[in-house]
Amino acid sequence: MNFASDNVVPATPEIMEALTAANQTSAPAYGADTVTRGLEAKFAELFEHEVSVYPVATGTAANCLALSALTPPWGIVYSEAGAHIAHDESTAPEFFTGGARIVQLHGKNGKILPASLKTALAEASNRAIHHAQSAAISVTQATEAGTVYTPSELGAIAELVRGSGLKMHMDGARFANAVAALNCSPADLTWRAGVDVLSFGATKNGALAAEAVVFFNKADAEAFEYRRKRAGHLFSKLRFLSCQLETCLAQGNWLKWAGHANRMAKRLANGLTATGIATLLYPVDANELFLSLPDAVIDGLEADGFGFYRWADAAGLGQVVRLVTAWNTDIADIDQFIARTRFHAKLEA
Amino acid sequence: MNFASDNVVPATPEIMEALTAANQTSAPAYGADTVTRGLEAKFAELFEHEVSVYPVATGTAANCLALSALTPPWGIVYSEAGAHIAHDESTAPEFFTGGARIVQLHGKNGKILPASLKTALAEASNRAIHHAQSAAISVTQATEAGTVYTPSELGAIAELVRGSGLKMHMDGARFANAVAALNCSPADLTWRAGVDVLSFGATKNGALAAEAVVFFNKADAEAFEYRRKRAGHLFSKLRFLSCQLETCLAQGNWLKWAGHANRMAKRLANGLTATGIATLLYPVDANELFLSLPDAVIDGLEADGFGFYRWADAAGLGQVVRLVTAWNTDIADIDQFIARTRFHAKLEA
Amino acid sequence: MNFASDNVVPATPEIMEALTAANQTSAPAYGADTVTRGLEAKFAELFEHEVSVYPVATGTAANCLALSALTPPWGIVYSEAGAHIAHDESTAPEFFTGGARIVQLHGKNGKILPASLKTALAEASNRAIHHAQSAAISVTQATEAGTVYTPSELGAIAELVRGSGLKMHMDGARFANAVAALNCSPADLTWRAGVDVLSFGATKNGALAAEAVVFFNKADAEAFEYRRKRAGHLFSKLRFLSCQLETCLAQGNWLKWAGHANRMAKRLANGLTATGIATLLYPVDANELFLSLPDAVIDGLEADGFGFYRWADAAGLGQVVRLVTAWNTDIADIDQFIARTRFHAKLEA
Amino acid sequence: MNFASDNVVPATPEIMEALTAANQTSAPAYGADTVTRGLEAKFAELFEHEVSVYPVATGTAANCLALSALTPPWGIVYSEAGAHIAHDESTAPEFFTGGARIVQLHGKNGKILPASLKTALAEASNRAIHHAQSAAISVTQATEAGTVYTPSELGAIAELVRGSGLKMHMDGARFANAVAALNCSPADLTWRAGVDVLSFGATKNGALAAEAVVFFNKADAEAFEYRRKRAGHLFSKLRFLSCQLETCLAQGNWLKWAGHANRMAKRLANGLTATGIATLLYPVDANELFLSLPDAVIDGLEADGFGFYRWADAAGLGQVVRLVTAWNTDIADIDQFIARTRFHAKLEA
Repeated sequence: MNFASDNVVPATPEIMEALTAANQTSAPAYGADTVTRGLEAKFAELFEHEVSVYPVATGTAANCLALSALTPPWGIVYSEAGAHIAHDESTAPEFFTGGARIVQLHGKNGKILPASLKTALAEASNRAIHHAQSAAISVTQATEAGTVYTPSELGAIAELVRGSGLKMHMDGARFANAVAALNCSPADLTWRAGVDVLSFGATKNGALAAEAVVFFNKADAEAFEYRRKRAGHLFSKLRFLSCQLETCLAQGNWLKWAGHANRMAKRLANGLTATGIATLLYPVDANELFLSLPDAVIDGLEADGFGFYRWADAAGLGQVVRLVTAWNTDIADIDQFIARTRFHAKLEA
Repeated sequence: MNFASDNVVPATPEIMEALTAANQTSAPAYGADTVTRGLEAKFAELFEHEVSVYPVATGTAANCLALSALTPPWGIVYSEAGAHIAHDESTAPEFFTGGARIVQLHGKNGKILPASLKTALAEASNRAIHHAQSAAISVTQATEAGTVYTPSELGAIAELVRGSGLKMHMDGARFANAVAALNCSPADLTWRAGVDVLSFGATKNGALAAEAVVFFNKADAEAFEYRRKRAGHLFSKLRFLSCQLETCLAQGNWLKWAGHANRMAKRLANGLTATGIATLLYPVDANELFLSLPDAVIDGLEADGFGFYRWADAAGLGQVVRLVTAWNTDIADIDQFIARTRFHAKLEA
Repeated sequence: MNFASDNVVPATPEIMEALTAANQTSAPAYGADTVTRGLEAKFAELFEHEVSVYPVATGTAANCLALSALTPPWGIVYSEAGAHIAHDESTAPEFFTGGARIVQLHGKNGKILPASLKTALAEASNRAIHHAQSAAISVTQATEAGTVYTPSELGAIAELVRGSGLKMHMDGARFANAVAALNCSPADLTWRAGVDVLSFGATKNGALAAEAVVFFNKADAEAFEYRRKRAGHLFSKLRFLSCQLETCLAQGNWLKWAGHANRMAKRLANGLTATGIATLLYPVDANELFLSLPDAVIDGLEADGFGFYRWADAAGLGQVVRLVTAWNTDIADIDQFIARTRFHAKLEA
Repeated sequence: MNFASDNVVPATPEIMEALTAANQTSAPAYGADTVTRGLEAKFAELFEHEVSVYPVATGTAANCLALSALTPPWGIVYSEAGAHIAHDESTAPEFFTGGARIVQLHGKNGKILPASLKTALAEASNRAIHHAQSAAISVTQATEAGTVYTPSELGAIAELVRGSGLKMHMDGARFANAVAALNCSPADLTWRAGVDVLSFGATKNGALAAEAVVFFNKADAEAFEYRRKRAGHLFSKLRFLSCQLETCLAQGNWLKWAGHANRMAKRLANGLTATGIATLLYPVDANELFLSLPDAVIDGLEADGFGFYRWADAAGLGQVVRLVTAWNTDIADIDQFIARTRFHAKLEA
């Protein structure tokens, strides 16, 4: 079983059926089709708020196009140090924003600490022309550590952001996992908590390749179509992205898929913790686990054929591995992973 | 029937089957899968030459990423005035190249005239530091006028290009149509004719969304992966792009699909010309027709439900329409279009 | 005598005295000094209009920073084909604007023809998202052909610009020569004629290195200080640029210097025309002459030690030379140039 | 007396004389003059090494143009957190490099700690395509804390840099102060210590506005002229920058000026330390002092008319002030500053 990432698994049957259905007829290109045109109403209903919605195909495109709408080229975007935009998207943020700067804040459990943000904003508050100018903050929900911000945690950040006249972006590559975990409304985790624009991810939640940039203030989206086009991210056959997003939202599919992934992660976390062998680095709120294991156990699990990443040892706990569950994770694989962990640990002992 | 563009039609059944097949299992992300890794060998065989191949999802991404590998930010890329990079990709060429310049040459039938290129290169040949520097040329095959360059026409351009130490890019969004039309080897239209890098298009030839950037000199591709990643064009589930490209190449599918489109375009051109009502603007070499028709005929055809674009009247011939055929164009639709053209013309007379 | 350009001559004595005077004391850096702070009032008086004024050191910086305030990265700036921004500033316009596009209009005598501009704007007026978007127009005053736009000629352009909701920039590297030539108010040639921002040149008119970017609408200047700083064009010892500009404006120096240059150019033009040997390419409105001469005469003048540029033969008139006069051009040199032209022509005949 | 910065004082008499002398005649523009053409030989002699030398007018231009020659747009440039490029040049590094990233290392006394650099490079050493790529390191000499790197300290950094195949830049806005302080050869602090390109500053050492970008490997400078031109940093009357640089180097002027500034700083540091009232934050190696003083003393000194900056309290020592000496600092002003410090402290006590 492959726990390497939620982007190594197949798309859901519903997604494939949607593609097949969309493929039955011709349709106008570049988003003039009915599926694309219907997306805003569906997202507006989901978020209980007027929205502007733009489908793109990759998370980097969603995040960096969104940021380019929130910061001038001389601006600063604050993020947690492990955020995808800071760590995993090459210099795409700089490219899309025309040279703005990501300033990394070292947080806890993947979350920005309000106190750190407050300090950073205060330092930058009387910035003369010589310095980069605070423009926006980006939070990741669920975080890269597999945790989730509660609405009140987001609110604490948003309060600082608003007080400084900044904008707030949410990287929601695993937004579905966060909503499923918190069992609260999408509105509570976004615009009600101060988010201006959301990268709504579907690729890691059962789609082939589909993300939606969701603006909660139309004014922020004014130039977005120009930005998307000139970055080569406007698909001619856009309906094939849009139908994936539509299918996510239909009948609560997105939460069904993410909820399953979350439950599998929780089961895996509980099972591994119970062995006494594994130490979790962070709370397992969503569908990712980071844990330390003895080297021999890791080697054994790899030899068994389990897929996962060895992670940099950030916490001084020895070798760390990341395990990610997905919409299609089989409970039997979870239980076998736990059993084999016990097995390899005994061998070692 | 929709003759608006080759990007309004469905994907071919083979493409959909390939997606379904690829979706049966998990596979490594970001191109480490076997399908993606096998692409270079397949393209190398097709082109009879060592190649570096990078799948992307849009033509703009393919073209502009390719150009960014051929010109510095202070360089000039020459193209025909109607080229997609000059006219239909916003300022994406400038964005991707970090600010290089497209210099448009007014050609004939969509093709660059060697004499014009020679003049432009001569003017720029002793350019001091104050001026933008000649760096590359981009040709479109098939052209935006629906014509194709013969190998010898390409060779005449390539000779000038090489003499100036420049690089040569081919926008092959409809490369399949050109190869099918000329019935020559892909090699004869690319590296043997002087092309350094090709945007190999599949989206307009029956794929959902897939293009391949094909480098014929590995040195030119050195930084390509960095460029693709930071532009947000590296797909995590890259195999779903790669399998489309693989399917194009398999069993000569790409030429079968493009050949059909070409034959339908020829039939439509011949039929309309025979009516004495329509005037073709350019030779119909591939799958696009540009023709002038009486306004009343155009109105009538639109009322019939035929889809097509009204085009800017470049040639002073009155209203011009563009008709595009595709892999799935039905011969009955062709014949009906011709019949209805006669019908509306009689009404008018 | 060196007629190569108005940038090869020394600075005026007044400029040197101003530098020496400014150097007597310490003063705050980065424009907080009293000279810099006083510039806006002086320019406002000169232009009879509220202005925002930013000193920079080069014409390219002035032009391209100004343009970056008028166009988004997906915009078009229209200019005459021979404009400095189109021909002599490498790809600086693209660099500063983040990738906007210069579209060249072929005009007459260095001036944009309203009819050509009208056509270009009309073509672009219903531009979809796929195309670059009309954003601004840039006129050069005096032009690169040594001619000047009259207020009514500017007004005809401005009317088209306003009708399209665009912005208007004036490259005034030789603005002083234009004002001196037309003997009209600076206001008549700028904001009253529709200009939004002016590159006010001093370097070619007797300064060491000083240009002022003059905005007539403060809103357009909102982000200018950030742009200037991050382009490395904010001088720490800014007062040394500012005092040059102040000196230009003091006691009408700028018009005195430019007026002299213009008169010398006129005398040279008249004298050469009277020889029957030289043919002027354009009217000599300002301080530049473009003329065709027999090759042997050109060779002879060069052998005499006169400095000038041989120019590309745009008009099919044989070899063309450019002669530029300046604030310090000596009438005796003018007369000798004419005499030697006659001399070399006789030798040839 | 104004201790605010070394950029608030006048230029030296030698610099003004050089400008006046250069202004006696006409000379070719854009660097074709004899002064500019002679610079490389003079710098080569000074550095005992072949060099490519490019005059520019601001430190930001020098630094960021230099960096753009060392990193691709997807690269990382490491610097100390307080470096000018990281803290005081807006997002100019991103602008000039096309979007590369500055990664800040928290050092000691303004210097990068080799251990921190080693860790950072190790973390980045096996960076996949998803991450920004280590490209260069930038050291500041003298540092922003007023300290200097010894040749062996530089060598320790260079060893790590070379081991990783990176390039090394030195921001030498106060290079003269460092050389004067260490009394070693310019070569020992640059190419012999591993530096590839130096921003040689003159503006803060008695010039009006002049910096030289000095490359020790001609290959690195290959595209520099294009970069300088398109950033608007190529002066038409370049000789007026070049003559300032020539004058710096002539008869050891640059070290005479910087040496005086250093001695004044040392005298000020010693005198203030002896009062028992002031606490120095960093060793005073060059011409900058950072010290904590009681608030009432600072207020008193300001009321006396002394110019200086209040600095952010980085060290938790209470209010910090920065004092900068220059080529023209008067010993009497130094002694009076010390005396007045004692006076205000007594008042307070």
